[in-house]
Amino acid sequence: MRQSNLFGRTLREAPADAQTPGTQLMLRAAIARPLAAGLYTWLPLGFRVARKVEQIIREEQDRIGAQEMRVPVITPAEYWKETGRWDTLEPVTFRTKDHGGHEYVIGYTHEELVMHHARSEILSYRQLPAMVYHFQEKGRDEQRSRAGLLRAREFVMKDAYSLDKDLEGLDKQYRLQYSAYEKSFERMGLKAISVESDSGNMGGDVAHEFQVLTEVGEDRIILCTKGDYRANMEKATRAVRPSAAVPGNVPAPAPVSTPGVTSIEALTASLKVESRDLLKTLLLRDASGAVVAVVLPGDRELNEPKLRKVLATSDVKFATDADFAAAKAVAGFIGPVGLQARLLVDVSVEARPYIAGGNTKDTHLRNVLPGRDFQGEKVDVHDVREGDACPKCGGALEIKRGVEVGNIFKFGPYYADKMNATYEAEDGTRKPLIFGSYGIGIGRAVQTIMETNHDAKGLIWPLAVAPFQAHVVALMGKDETVKTEADRLVADLETAGVEVLYDDRDETAGVKFADADLIGIPFRLTVSARTLKESSVELKGRTEEKGVMVPRGWIVAKMRDLLGERRRG
Amino acid sequence: MRQSNLFGRTLREAPADAQTPGTQLMLRAAIARPLAAGLYTWLPLGFRVARKVEQIIREEQDRIGAQEMRVPVITPAEYWKETGRWDTLEPVTFRTKDHGGHEYVIGYTHEELVMHHARSEILSYRQLPAMVYHFQEKGRDEQRSRAGLLRAREFVMKDAYSLDKDLEGLDKQYRLQYSAYEKSFERMGLKAISVESDSGNMGGDVAHEFQVLTEVGEDRIILCTKGDYRANMEKATRAVRPSAAVPGNVPAPAPVSTPGVTSIEALTASLKVESRDLLKTLLLRDASGAVVAVVLPGDRELNEPKLRKVLATSDVKFATDADFAAAKAVAGFIGPVGLQARLLVDVSVEARPYIAGGNTKDTHLRNVLPGRDFQGEKVDVHDVREGDACPKCGGALEIKRGVEVGNIFKFGPYYADKMNATYEAEDGTRKPLIFGSYGIGIGRAVQTIMETNHDAKGLIWPLAVAPFQAHVVALMGKDETVKTEADRLVADLETAGVEVLYDDRDETAGVKFADADLIGIPFRLTVSARTLKESSVELKGRTEEKGVMVPRGWIVAKMRDLLGERRRG
Repeated sequence: MRQSNLFGRTLREAPADAQTPGTQLMLRAAIARPLAAGLYTWLPLGFRVARKVEQIIREEQDRIGAQEMRVPVITPAEYWKETGRWDTLEPVTFRTKDHGGHEYVIGYTHEELVMHHARSEILSYRQLPAMVYHFQEKGRDEQRSRAGLLRAREFVMKDAYSLDKDLEGLDKQYRLQYSAYEKSFERMGLKAISVESDSGNMGGDVAHEFQVLTEVGEDRIILCTKGDYRANMEKATRAVRPSAAVPGNVPAPAPVSTPGVTSIEALTASLKVESRDLLKTLLLRDASGAVVAVVLPGDRELNEPKLRKVLATSDVKFATDADFAAAKAVAGFIGPVGLQARLLVDVSVEARPYIAGGNTKDTHLRNVLPGRDFQGEKVDVHDVREGDACPKCGGALEIKRGVEVGNIFKFGPYYADKMNATYEAEDGTRKPLIFGSYGIGIGRAVQTIMETNHDAKGLIWPLAVAPFQAHVVALMGKDETVKTEADRLVADLETAGVEVLYDDRDETAGVKFADADLIGIPFRLTVSARTLKESSVELKGRTEEKGVMVPRGWIVAKMRDLLGERRRG
Repeated sequence: MRQSNLFGRTLREAPADAQTPGTQLMLRAAIARPLAAGLYTWLPLGFRVARKVEQIIREEQDRIGAQEMRVPVITPAEYWKETGRWDTLEPVTFRTKDHGGHEYVIGYTHEELVMHHARSEILSYRQLPAMVYHFQEKGRDEQRSRAGLLRAREFVMKDAYSLDKDLEGLDKQYRLQYSAYEKSFERMGLKAISVESDSGNMGGDVAHEFQVLTEVGEDRIILCTKGDYRANMEKATRAVRPSAAVPGNVPAPAPVSTPGVTSIEALTASLKVESRDLLKTLLLRDASGAVVAVVLPGDRELNEPKLRKVLATSDVKFATDADFAAAKAVAGFIGPVGLQARLLVDVSVEARPYIAGGNTKDTHLRNVLPGRDFQGEKVDVHDVREGDACPKCGGALEIKRGVEVGNIFKFGPYYADKMNATYEAEDGTRKPLIFGSYGIGIGRAVQTIMETNHDAKGLIWPLAVAPFQAHVVALMGKDETVKTEADRLVADLETAGVEVLYDDRDETAGVKFADADLIGIPFRLTVSARTLKESSVELKGRTEEKGVMVPRGWIVAKMRDLLGERRRG
């Protein structure tokens, strides 16, 4: 393709609001352009990358026997109502109505739709297992759309769905997808690791995410420094040491005056204690308005996703003044003793005396002994932190930033139960279709490749997903022969099956080389008066400091070798 | 692919509401399934066809230098407001809002969005011409969604856009697209002809549609039986004979009592005249509420699209009672003489006496002479009909039904003017970007292929777009060797690059052959105890009456020959 006709121009400077290095390069190299917050158009250069990523995923899906199909973007409300996600997904979905008043969701994912088709297409166990997938636009009204294509409000996702007779079949297809994901990410140049994850608003219990560790990621990933435990902070647990024997001689709780001292920090300063010796009590409401109190040690943070899972709710908010009054609590001095509310006690709370709120203004209590002075349901709702003990092997845990580039969910009978999706089993009874789903966002994958493959000068595309394989740069002077020779070189390379971007523009060498580095095509081939004098072409790899002169007669074969080698590599 | 695992089951009977033969077969053969009125999911079998159609189009677009990109489905209102289509397209678009209150259109087409990108990417004449395209879902809230994928409410369209310095450049790119369309349709097995068309709500003046003539089409196409004139009824004109000399001695208009006689049919019966001797006067309002009267001979029908074009409006409705009163007309007895309204007189109205409404209850007028008794703007707003004279050569016109499978529009500076999209010209001035757009709907193309390629037993796919090239049918008996041999045949064919659907199900020969005919894959290869006895495979083309026995050792080579021949053919 001739660069003079390429739709999309490179930019010297990135817009000021580009948040990450990859986003800046994405904009500067004309990979994509924003139309509105979180809505991006792929320009031709970027779309070539997106297509290659899509094709890698397609090949790996086809290899494990998944069948490609296509569900619409505009999906009728009725199917979402069957699972309750019409309501729970409201805050993050786009909706539309037709002129007859019927309501639709711009597909957030497509579980409901695929399950709807499955229940009418799959009548008998003879048709199972089945696995289908599609590439389709998703709409998500993310308030925190960020970092270019990392979290956009519309993006193409490959979502696959497995249908099985039983959990054993699901396990098998889940493993197939797991391995397809590993291969797909490796082929596109992403170092993705799988971690345990929360299934969030998707339903079901077992889920893994594929995470690429990078500072620009917004997920916090817990990794064991000794063993293989890996989990998203939203799901991660730690080994909690068994409590020492309960001290036998703890005096009864006694009030301590703490006028105006309402935060953990202020308490530790005022009472000269460690935050770990305090109890933190949070009064919260779930999406249904039910009130619950959560007790944590003063040095531990609440993990909201874990709490939402415990409460089986889509949202958790702070309680209202009325809730405080009903619980007989005083804001700033709330504590578990005598509290009139459902009480959840985090597993981090030990069987030893603590200082806790006294449920009276300006008052805390000393010698509050969990189990003696208050009882509650034991739950794990705290954030794991650096240095905690691994739940599998006891090793030290560390925390890294990551981008979730893929996720896989085992739903089991969850969707089938809600949607009454059954098949006729071998024994003649009707059984629920066992379901799993498997997603990869194309835009996020491409953005992550950019975030993890660049230098100060620009992008460095892995060969398998590069928009072009070779960038022919012609340094036209007054000599017409440079153009003639460059044209011929491009024709020869294209005939040999090499994908070429041809910089035929009337620009200086400086501008052309800077653009070549910015766009980041793996191989640069320069034709100039100087190279012609040696009957050669200058060949330079994107990450190499200097090019080498290759005789014109050898260059096509050389390129084929290079592309072949890399492909095999 | 094994048919036992194929997602999507064939149906013995089509649902009662399937309107056309192709729709019935689309549903029965599990090509696609409805989710709601006009919203369809491609099942795996159908999606393979859609992908092949898409790939043919992509190759022909790439061949003419168009660059693939991708604009989102969710498009900000602001761009549509620049051209006014935010309002004019309201009745046929889906809209959505984000939680911040911003409004969006589910892309109806993408002219505004591409033009928006063009005005920021294209700075100089050096970057022109440019041509881009994408495949993207469109949303259209059609009230008359019909015939399966022929007119759906969501569908993928290939829309291409050309950007040029001047009209000469546009002509050139328009011709390139025209030829790409001819090749694309031919390759996918559609006999499409180009016809002049109305540009409708797209803007601009010059447009062509590619029509496939078939009884299920809803467009009426005017064809000259002698020359090459071809036009959509919405745009077609005819040669109007020059009026004979105006009769000199026509008496003044005279009232004739016609109590309760308000229709053309009733008048011809009651007054014993031909409908061509009557004048029909229609009082109408355009989208802005402006009132206009249209006068036609009694034997001619109003062509609404032509009238909308004349009035530059998006909609035409019947006038209200108040409009009648203001025009001094009486419903049922309206006529052009003395009418207080803007008057459009169709070119079919001749300079001879007519009978027309008298604008008084129960009264018509005789001897109404156009030009003498009333004046109006001369317009061409009538339907052409069978036998009319060709506007180019005078030959007899005929009318056929057609499906519009593609359209191409020359907009010129229309969009650039509305969106202030200019580039720096060679002479340093700023000039408007000259624009064209070019669309093909994938689903409609596939449905049209089905409508025009079937017999009583099922679909007959053209090889280039068939979901699979070969259908291997194994007639399992008690003999395990049939399955073993069929497995081996499938493996050999797939290794040789043949796309195979493998009917490995536990069904009778009758069911399997019926399904094979229904699905309509070009070549059927049967393996059974009988064929094994002869060390052969039975090969049958979909449209052939009988199969032939081909030795097992030859079958792979034979298939390669057949596929190669057809490809070349």
